[in-house]
Amino acid sequence: MDKKIPYKIYLDEQEMPKQWYNVRADMKKKPAPILNPATLKPVTVEELEPIFCTELAKQELDDTTAYFDIPEEIRNFYRMYRPSPLVRAYCLEEKLQTSAHIYYKFEGNNTSGSHKLNSAIAQAYYAKKQGLKGVTTETGAGQWGTALSMACSYFDLDCHVYMVKCSYEQKPFRREVMRTYGAQVTPSPSMNTEVGRKINKEFPGTTGSLGCAISEAVEAATTHEGYRYVLGSVLSQVLLHQSVIGLEAKSALDKYGIKADMVIGCAGGGSNLGGLISPFAGEMLRGEADYKLIAVEPASCPSLTRGKYAYDFCDTGKVCPLAKMYTLGSGFIPSANHAGGLRYHGMSSVVSELYDQGLIEARSVEQTEVFKAAETFARIEGILPAPESSHAIKVAMDEALKCKETGEEKNIVFGLTGTGYFDMVAYQKYNDGEMGDFIPSDEDLAKSFATLPKVD
Amino acid sequence: MDKKIPYKIYLDEQEMPKQWYNVRADMKKKPAPILNPATLKPVTVEELEPIFCTELAKQELDDTTAYFDIPEEIRNFYRMYRPSPLVRAYCLEEKLQTSAHIYYKFEGNNTSGSHKLNSAIAQAYYAKKQGLKGVTTETGAGQWGTALSMACSYFDLDCHVYMVKCSYEQKPFRREVMRTYGAQVTPSPSMNTEVGRKINKEFPGTTGSLGCAISEAVEAATTHEGYRYVLGSVLSQVLLHQSVIGLEAKSALDKYGIKADMVIGCAGGGSNLGGLISPFAGEMLRGEADYKLIAVEPASCPSLTRGKYAYDFCDTGKVCPLAKMYTLGSGFIPSANHAGGLRYHGMSSVVSELYDQGLIEARSVEQTEVFKAAETFARIEGILPAPESSHAIKVAMDEALKCKETGEEKNIVFGLTGTGYFDMVAYQKYNDGEMGDFIPSDEDLAKSFATLPKVD
Repeated sequence: MDKKIPYKIYLDEQEMPKQWYNVRADMKKKPAPILNPATLKPVTVEELEPIFCTELAKQELDDTTAYFDIPEEIRNFYRMYRPSPLVRAYCLEEKLQTSAHIYYKFEGNNTSGSHKLNSAIAQAYYAKKQGLKGVTTETGAGQWGTALSMACSYFDLDCHVYMVKCSYEQKPFRREVMRTYGAQVTPSPSMNTEVGRKINKEFPGTTGSLGCAISEAVEAATTHEGYRYVLGSVLSQVLLHQSVIGLEAKSALDKYGIKADMVIGCAGGGSNLGGLISPFAGEMLRGEADYKLIAVEPASCPSLTRGKYAYDFCDTGKVCPLAKMYTLGSGFIPSANHAGGLRYHGMSSVVSELYDQGLIEARSVEQTEVFKAAETFARIEGILPAPESSHAIKVAMDEALKCKETGEEKNIVFGLTGTGYFDMVAYQKYNDGEMGDFIPSDEDLAKSFATLPKVD
Repeated sequence: MDKKIPYKIYLDEQEMPKQWYNVRADMKKKPAPILNPATLKPVTVEELEPIFCTELAKQELDDTTAYFDIPEEIRNFYRMYRPSPLVRAYCLEEKLQTSAHIYYKFEGNNTSGSHKLNSAIAQAYYAKKQGLKGVTTETGAGQWGTALSMACSYFDLDCHVYMVKCSYEQKPFRREVMRTYGAQVTPSPSMNTEVGRKINKEFPGTTGSLGCAISEAVEAATTHEGYRYVLGSVLSQVLLHQSVIGLEAKSALDKYGIKADMVIGCAGGGSNLGGLISPFAGEMLRGEADYKLIAVEPASCPSLTRGKYAYDFCDTGKVCPLAKMYTLGSGFIPSANHAGGLRYHGMSSVVSELYDQGLIEARSVEQTEVFKAAETFARIEGILPAPESSHAIKVAMDEALKCKETGEEKNIVFGLTGTGYFDMVAYQKYNDGEMGDFIPSDEDLAKSFATLPKVD
């Protein structure tokens, strides 16, 4: 083993990024604008302000400013868990007997267990700065809700989380972490909102859905004085905040003179992938370097590999702006895949446009092989990965095995977005040999594509 | 805030300890020898060999060698999660408005979630080196079992964990982490061992106890060719391995010219406390420096503050060697305290002797105030602490508040042994206001003291 490069490359605190990077600024062809669902015209900051914090609405629509200063308060919070390590996977390399050099950027070393905290603290900060009382959001698997609870507790903001009822009941520990951080967690659909009451009446006994929880959270924000709605993925502002992942990874590689050959990330709404690849894609867009950028998605929810590039609703309640994105249609109901964070019908418009321009390639993988890769990784690298992150592990291992055949010493970098400590039900299914694979049929997709709005 | 000292002090990998430190070597009055339960005479390496790996048996009995080289294979494993950060708790200091400087050594950034991995990997290594097939152990709360599963998976060793039946049923996620790492997890008492069958017959429907699980694990090790028994706390070999915590903490402080005024650790069997304070106690023993060393234990299981210093059985099955230690008697049954790792009737003989010599002081704290401190810490420092670790947080906060009154700028260092991600049932009880405090009465203790053997 070549130990000149340490197992974990840590940046010093003074080497941490002082600015976020907005990859849209370097795109000649920009992502299509998001549309007001009522007018189908590009939405303005003013139109977004009743829903989002003003500063965040501005970030959302700004596709020309390349760098945004990270406020000192946010950098101080980042210092509690960042810089995150870029880990050289020496043990995995040896296990695979590969000539490739494998690196992963590990975002799971914080209590939220994932990268979500990077944007949660930014969104909470701008809400606090605007003098708001609190924020509302939805959560499915619970990673985003946990991250936001932590961020709000730090800035002493109210945090109301609408948690999909089946998760609320099946993941009591996630719920309790949020409560420990002082969040008010409500199973959705609830009787607190008009939309919740309507859905409860229409579908008695329903265990809820993410789409419904979003609608409840948006209604709660817009009908309560001093509250705004916040979201943990898909949005361009979120990718902006998450660029801290890629910027740190890039700096850590540069520190040791390592040139990445490929950068791999799992992709659900695109928050992690977009953040990780942004600075690499930026260099490609500016013609400074070339990388192979790979998005990995579950075969059960294949928005990039089998979706259409079209305007679609971001939520099933159809209250949020429309975005042009690779999508399976907002009516798509993903199967019971255990990577809850990747069960989204669409994809960030920034990632979608980069994919459409050919800067990113996409792969879809099935969950049993993902868990097999997760198990191998856990046993040899000592970290029990989140099911979502394990999608990237699977493809990184595949690529490393290709290098083994060719003898190439490629530098493979992937994003390890989080830990799987709250996903043990999924691991149990895998351990018991009871995990299945679910791939939507062409007929299924044709049905959900029929839910696409007629816009362009 | 004085930011010259970073939020997290990381040592470079080349600054990691290359040797473990054995504090017994610097003690003029040594801990009393452990005794063979059959002969009541000091046990020999030969007598320990059927139970323990030979190298570990030697480490157990060696009270004169000050430093033991850490084998390179173990150091390579350490590099995956060590050096662990020494964190300056700037946010907690501001929250408390204290003049004290608070530091914590955080051992929770690994999948086992605690410091237990430091010794697990050492014990697995020596078992592998001896050519054994595998090891057996017991686990209560599950931290040790998880750590050992990870270590055995790394060295490709069989790992049989006897898990107290009530934990096996109530903590399915801990069980699944161990299974993911390839361990065979058996609810104890089982029908696999003579002692298990006997207990099941005698007490039908019993949900088990740690003492019973130890007896099963020892029987399984001694009746199967190529297996040995390993233990995660109490033993002097474990404290030796855990000295890596204190050595790193000391180096990190030295790097920034910080002189600790006090070092605080939670104490169950003594593995974390002993490891953390060893190098500090060593300086005191050699007359080089003075520190206030504080052991914190639960009021529900107060071996140091209310126990007797006497020879006692280490296990309720009475198959292990006897040790002289502060003990409540092996018949002591601790109440349903949520800090499972601190529910042990005795205390490491090294820690006990240092306490008896006046080098360590001890405090006992009640669990509701411990969880209150845990909640405060989680909200402001961003880490959800293990209930065990939170005992140290509570006393560190108390000491910081004393400094606030006096205006002293003391340097307070405490051990944050792990995270509480698998302890959310306890947090839920606290969140719901349903947590109680349990303090044994003098009558309870008199009864359990009556179970002490007549030795000295």
